[in-house]
Amino acid sequence: MVFPQIRKIIEAALAEDIGTGDITTTAIVGRSVRGRAEALAKDDFILAGIDIFREVFVFLDEKIKFKSLLADGEKAGKGTVVAKIEGSLASILQGERVALNIFQRMCGVATLTSKFVQAVRGSQAKILDTRKTPPGLRLLDKMAVSIGGGFNHRMGLYDGVLIKDNHIAAAGSITAAVKAQKNHLPHTVKIEVETKNIKEVREALQCSVDIIMLDNMTPGEMAKAVQLISGRALVEASGNVSLANVAAIAATGVDLISVGELTHSVRAADISLKITQ
Amino acid sequence: MVFPQIRKIIEAALAEDIGTGDITTTAIVGRSVRGRAEALAKDDFILAGIDIFREVFVFLDEKIKFKSLLADGEKAGKGTVVAKIEGSLASILQGERVALNIFQRMCGVATLTSKFVQAVRGSQAKILDTRKTPPGLRLLDKMAVSIGGGFNHRMGLYDGVLIKDNHIAAAGSITAAVKAQKNHLPHTVKIEVETKNIKEVREALQCSVDIIMLDNMTPGEMAKAVQLISGRALVEASGNVSLANVAAIAATGVDLISVGELTHSVRAADISLKITQ
Amino acid sequence: MVFPQIRKIIEAALAEDIGTGDITTTAIVGRSVRGRAEALAKDDFILAGIDIFREVFVFLDEKIKFKSLLADGEKAGKGTVVAKIEGSLASILQGERVALNIFQRMCGVATLTSKFVQAVRGSQAKILDTRKTPPGLRLLDKMAVSIGGGFNHRMGLYDGVLIKDNHIAAAGSITAAVKAQKNHLPHTVKIEVETKNIKEVREALQCSVDIIMLDNMTPGEMAKAVQLISGRALVEASGNVSLANVAAIAATGVDLISVGELTHSVRAADISLKITQ
Amino acid sequence: MVFPQIRKIIEAALAEDIGTGDITTTAIVGRSVRGRAEALAKDDFILAGIDIFREVFVFLDEKIKFKSLLADGEKAGKGTVVAKIEGSLASILQGERVALNIFQRMCGVATLTSKFVQAVRGSQAKILDTRKTPPGLRLLDKMAVSIGGGFNHRMGLYDGVLIKDNHIAAAGSITAAVKAQKNHLPHTVKIEVETKNIKEVREALQCSVDIIMLDNMTPGEMAKAVQLISGRALVEASGNVSLANVAAIAATGVDLISVGELTHSVRAADISLKITQ
Amino acid sequence: MVFPQIRKIIEAALAEDIGTGDITTTAIVGRSVRGRAEALAKDDFILAGIDIFREVFVFLDEKIKFKSLLADGEKAGKGTVVAKIEGSLASILQGERVALNIFQRMCGVATLTSKFVQAVRGSQAKILDTRKTPPGLRLLDKMAVSIGGGFNHRMGLYDGVLIKDNHIAAAGSITAAVKAQKNHLPHTVKIEVETKNIKEVREALQCSVDIIMLDNMTPGEMAKAVQLISGRALVEASGNVSLANVAAIAATGVDLISVGELTHSVRAADISLKITQ
Amino acid sequence: MVFPQIRKIIEAALAEDIGTGDITTTAIVGRSVRGRAEALAKDDFILAGIDIFREVFVFLDEKIKFKSLLADGEKAGKGTVVAKIEGSLASILQGERVALNIFQRMCGVATLTSKFVQAVRGSQAKILDTRKTPPGLRLLDKMAVSIGGGFNHRMGLYDGVLIKDNHIAAAGSITAAVKAQKNHLPHTVKIEVETKNIKEVREALQCSVDIIMLDNMTPGEMAKAVQLISGRALVEASGNVSLANVAAIAATGVDLISVGELTHSVRAADISLKITQ
Repeated sequence: MVFPQIRKIIEAALAEDIGTGDITTTAIVGRSVRGRAEALAKDDFILAGIDIFREVFVFLDEKIKFKSLLADGEKAGKGTVVAKIEGSLASILQGERVALNIFQRMCGVATLTSKFVQAVRGSQAKILDTRKTPPGLRLLDKMAVSIGGGFNHRMGLYDGVLIKDNHIAAAGSITAAVKAQKNHLPHTVKIEVETKNIKEVREALQCSVDIIMLDNMTPGEMAKAVQLISGRALVEASGNVSLANVAAIAATGVDLISVGELTHSVRAADISLKITQ
Repeated sequence: MVFPQIRKIIEAALAEDIGTGDITTTAIVGRSVRGRAEALAKDDFILAGIDIFREVFVFLDEKIKFKSLLADGEKAGKGTVVAKIEGSLASILQGERVALNIFQRMCGVATLTSKFVQAVRGSQAKILDTRKTPPGLRLLDKMAVSIGGGFNHRMGLYDGVLIKDNHIAAAGSITAAVKAQKNHLPHTVKIEVETKNIKEVREALQCSVDIIMLDNMTPGEMAKAVQLISGRALVEASGNVSLANVAAIAATGVDLISVGELTHSVRAADISLKITQ
Repeated sequence: MVFPQIRKIIEAALAEDIGTGDITTTAIVGRSVRGRAEALAKDDFILAGIDIFREVFVFLDEKIKFKSLLADGEKAGKGTVVAKIEGSLASILQGERVALNIFQRMCGVATLTSKFVQAVRGSQAKILDTRKTPPGLRLLDKMAVSIGGGFNHRMGLYDGVLIKDNHIAAAGSITAAVKAQKNHLPHTVKIEVETKNIKEVREALQCSVDIIMLDNMTPGEMAKAVQLISGRALVEASGNVSLANVAAIAATGVDLISVGELTHSVRAADISLKITQ
Repeated sequence: MVFPQIRKIIEAALAEDIGTGDITTTAIVGRSVRGRAEALAKDDFILAGIDIFREVFVFLDEKIKFKSLLADGEKAGKGTVVAKIEGSLASILQGERVALNIFQRMCGVATLTSKFVQAVRGSQAKILDTRKTPPGLRLLDKMAVSIGGGFNHRMGLYDGVLIKDNHIAAAGSITAAVKAQKNHLPHTVKIEVETKNIKEVREALQCSVDIIMLDNMTPGEMAKAVQLISGRALVEASGNVSLANVAAIAATGVDLISVGELTHSVRAADISLKITQ
Repeated sequence: MVFPQIRKIIEAALAEDIGTGDITTTAIVGRSVRGRAEALAKDDFILAGIDIFREVFVFLDEKIKFKSLLADGEKAGKGTVVAKIEGSLASILQGERVALNIFQRMCGVATLTSKFVQAVRGSQAKILDTRKTPPGLRLLDKMAVSIGGGFNHRMGLYDGVLIKDNHIAAAGSITAAVKAQKNHLPHTVKIEVETKNIKEVREALQCSVDIIMLDNMTPGEMAKAVQLISGRALVEASGNVSLANVAAIAATGVDLISVGELTHSVRAADISLKITQ
Repeated sequence: MVFPQIRKIIEAALAEDIGTGDITTTAIVGRSVRGRAEALAKDDFILAGIDIFREVFVFLDEKIKFKSLLADGEKAGKGTVVAKIEGSLASILQGERVALNIFQRMCGVATLTSKFVQAVRGSQAKILDTRKTPPGLRLLDKMAVSIGGGFNHRMGLYDGVLIKDNHIAAAGSITAAVKAQKNHLPHTVKIEVETKNIKEVREALQCSVDIIMLDNMTPGEMAKAVQLISGRALVEASGNVSLANVAAIAATGVDLISVGELTHSVRAADISLKITQ
């Protein structure tokens, strides 16, 4: 079972690929031909989105049988069969590419996330995603980050407050911006402010914000900021984070590290569907 | 001006990000505050999607002024300003992330495509995309491939025929599959058949298909196949193509090389929006 | 089972007819009343769309039982029962008109197509449809043409290239237009050029296009063109084709004859639903 | 200006035809090329839908200039220019087919309606349409009937009551069905009952219904029914009405004659778009 | 079973509430946890919408078991269990609020309607709703009015004619407006005219309209109008009707009393979902 | 300018009311007739949604001129003209009811909210809305609460965490539920826990939650809870809050008081549109 928003994504993806009909399969494969298939890992990765992978086939043809052999979050080694599918061969062939496109991306996002999480192991830092997702992929990408061991930053402009440099400039100062924000803020939402240097960190602290983002600071500056903040706000490191520098950033003591690359520059996991009969 | 399908993508992407409203900007930036911004290249890349980038802002707020400084297909060097935007600051801030997400992906796809095209320069081979696109990105990704100097394979299952191994297995043989296909084939569409070895290439040739795909063959096998086919069909190389091996593949004399990586494993171009006032 | 695009058409058609509710049936026929019905041919026609006819009822009420007695492409003689339906009487009555509207049109299109196909029997000519379909009917009409023995021309502007007089005028010449086209053409798509006279046919031939359309030529001109082309391209006759002249056109040796009337001027097949209990 | 429902139809029709992009025009006709076109009548017909014809182009490209030379309901003789269009040539070419498909159908419906209206001239009978419209065309077809001088029967199951034989059978009798109906009937809606013979007409009269449909009666029976009803209800003739028999039906004194053919078997008016520059 | 329009409302309402996912339940309640719940009346009300209440849960999760203990139109006293639900606890919790929001409103509308119906008991007057419904609630609200014993006025501008003061002013007079209307009127639709005084009532009568609305008249004027009309048209009282004055209005002999408050100022019925295990 | 989500609501509301066309206005009011109108307050209320009120007319007809005389949040006294509209009379009449339905509800919600806000003046308590909104009205209702001086609780299940009794029961204890939650919680979101008594308040405090909801406690219990919590979490009072008891609740020192009635039981503000010419 997937929730309504996911079903919409699947419906749209199938419409995108099948359009006015699969002219190859329709001409060649009779409706009554049955088939079996296996989803095969061709590399090592973290599984993510297996229920959605399944739902693509079932949405197309409710008689398809689908069996997962691994669960979201588990590691699939090269050569592992991760799911078995059985039913109308035409339905399997028509769902194949869409199902794989979604699944390979989600596994790719989860796997990359997992590498970042490994890289900061031992520190207290959590790995976060961003809003840097291709259009329409926000939800799937963020689900995959979570499965990979990361945490989700806000979903969009509607469910979290992040006061950035441009907001601050428009308001005149961090203090003015935070004050304007607090006049409308839902009590369930935290306030995060972007800062560029220690002076701004200090101003943000005086405004009692919940989260302070350190934007593009050096590890040295970050360490100073962490010390200054000293637990009075969560601290998020942001800007040009990579597998190469994430451990050093985590070592500064920040609570959160947001990584745009997790979703804007994804390598799809290598998975294929083998028809076995 | 963008065509209706693109407008739909933009509308959906804005809904995804703004949802029930931008709670930060609404609280802090008054409606009458005006701003100017520049889209700035922070790396070298091929520009792709500048009209769509523009349309995001204009869709949100028809009074936004937008000026492109480069056109699709041109190179943007690190530090180049590629566009200037002027109007309501709130509108600029609310469109920023969505506009960049689309634009950065399209530039990323075009840039990667361009590298493959460079790598085969001197050969006759064209670089093709595939249907390996994340859900909802088929159209944007394929437009970007084209801007980057590549060519589009079929958009979906509806506008091209590709008889794959599973279709062949279901029909019994390449010959049987092609015959079944020809009974329904629109005259505007070419027939492509996937082959795994020289024997299959020979059978496909005898069926007078338009395009023969060489799936996962070695360069040596490819060269043999090209010689055998000898211009009687277009020849497409497919399977595990990378920047490392694409030149060798092109050297075999194939006409077309399809590259899944162009769209399934994309690195977003690094572009940011600078508010200049 | 119908594919997603068809389900969307059915859903929209039911919404169009039922709107905010069937105020007659709701007031008079209790939910628990069961009924049986037969779909009865009241004239001779070619069956087309029986699966979609079925799906309308099942979409409304998944408990409806439906049994087809004939298959798509078969002839239904006047008086034939083509399907039997059983279930909630209210559901049958609420789906009746929408189901018939779709089915009668598809059978009408298939029947007219079949007459054209009969009229050219003995020649090599295939009967083609066009893009002259009322809004929203492209897919259903084209499916029906195919069932009636015709072949589908391109589905829309996106899946086939047809260079018409206005494109030629804009480019300056057929040669210039074809050249511009080839710079972007997907390798899976053929190029068709519209020609008005033998001179244009000659120019098109020199450009190595795949298909040459002879637009509004006389049978005499067509025969000349066919001779000139001599198998180097497919030849499509187009313009004011009717049952009266189609045999003469086919006799000229053209490969393809496109007929706007197949879909722009359709007589619905006469079918009614009889409640039998 | 067209109202929202019409805009939706236009949007969907353009999406159906243009899909992922017009691959011919995009390759050949530059964005800055301007053109002029004329919509030319190639036969005689009644104009219907000129505002919608215009809106297709304007929806695609708001800068298109459009000038109508005739208004809905006027006669266009063969050779008449009915509208002039000016603007981006690419926009004109991309909107052409969709605009014509809608316009030609609407003119076709209006023209056929007009013939029926002429045929009953001198009688009091009004010509009505039915719900026998292809899926998605209900609104456009009914607008065209009205422009052609006909009147609209109910739009769907939601805005009019028509108690048919199956409802009567389910209720047990006309009397029982009408009684059940009146318990829920909105006061703004009239009740119409279908009758098969004089006995049923009598029963319907006793129930004080507003409209009595004479279904498939002979002109002789109709005349008797009209005499019996004698103005106490509107009388609608229905069933197998054609241009051949409609005058005889009108002569029986019925108030209304419904004609399925007006919308289920339409011949498109012959109109073409001529690029004049 | 609910009809397609209702399913759309449910789908949209669930999307509105669940959005990108229920972050509380997903984190805490495992998929395999089962639960039982009862919908409990916490006040006295008329039940309305029980099938829709059920459908919300089933739409989310087709395995949910739902049992109604009361039917639409029945009275639920404080403390009554009106339905029992069993299945995945997560599904029950995720559907709860949406299901209740719809159900509580419908019961609230039906209950208020019922009070108006009681207040006019003994008179011939029917209680009508209006088009004064919050956006998107037209259908649900009108269904609830009907369940509560009221009758539905037109659903929208498309299915009934109501000539108001502004139409009259534009036409010049009631007579001119009615004449213009009759030239286009579908025969299934009645004509209603709004009048402000006896003089206008008289003019409307002379135009043979079907329904005369008495707008904001005093009971004395209404009684006079009823006497004047004397059965030649239905009479509808309108304007500032409340529970305090509705009996007096009914006593004037009007046929219909329309009450905006039924849908524009609704108190939700008090119903809660108790998890019982 | 309104943002995309609001435009969607307006589009849907117009489709709901106009459907297949306004059969009264179309027949009577010519397209070229111009009109002026005033939106007139017929009672005292707080203005809310004036931009959306405007947008309804402009969406229908972009040539409509609209001038607001009051702004959101201002008081409109009985007799005040709040806006002036000028343009096509037909457009004004067709937008009137939809525009008023939205505007009257929003003003109604804001006005009721404002009364609650007045009632707690002098205390520190903020008035909150809930998720108890009729389907489709969540966004408009919450905007109106905010305009009326209240604050928004979470928009849906996706943007705030509220651990209720059933979650606690499923987890085993408050402690277990909070722990499960924290394993997935985005750092931008606060955790709120529902408590029924002092014991539960104590357990919630030990879990370091951000907000503690006191559900259906007496003012006496609330005061104790506030004292116990002593600023270590925000305190929200919930359950059966009315204008009669809200001041007493505020006096207990709670920070937040949520009021379902603000949106589930709304009296529309009395506003009418007067055509002035």
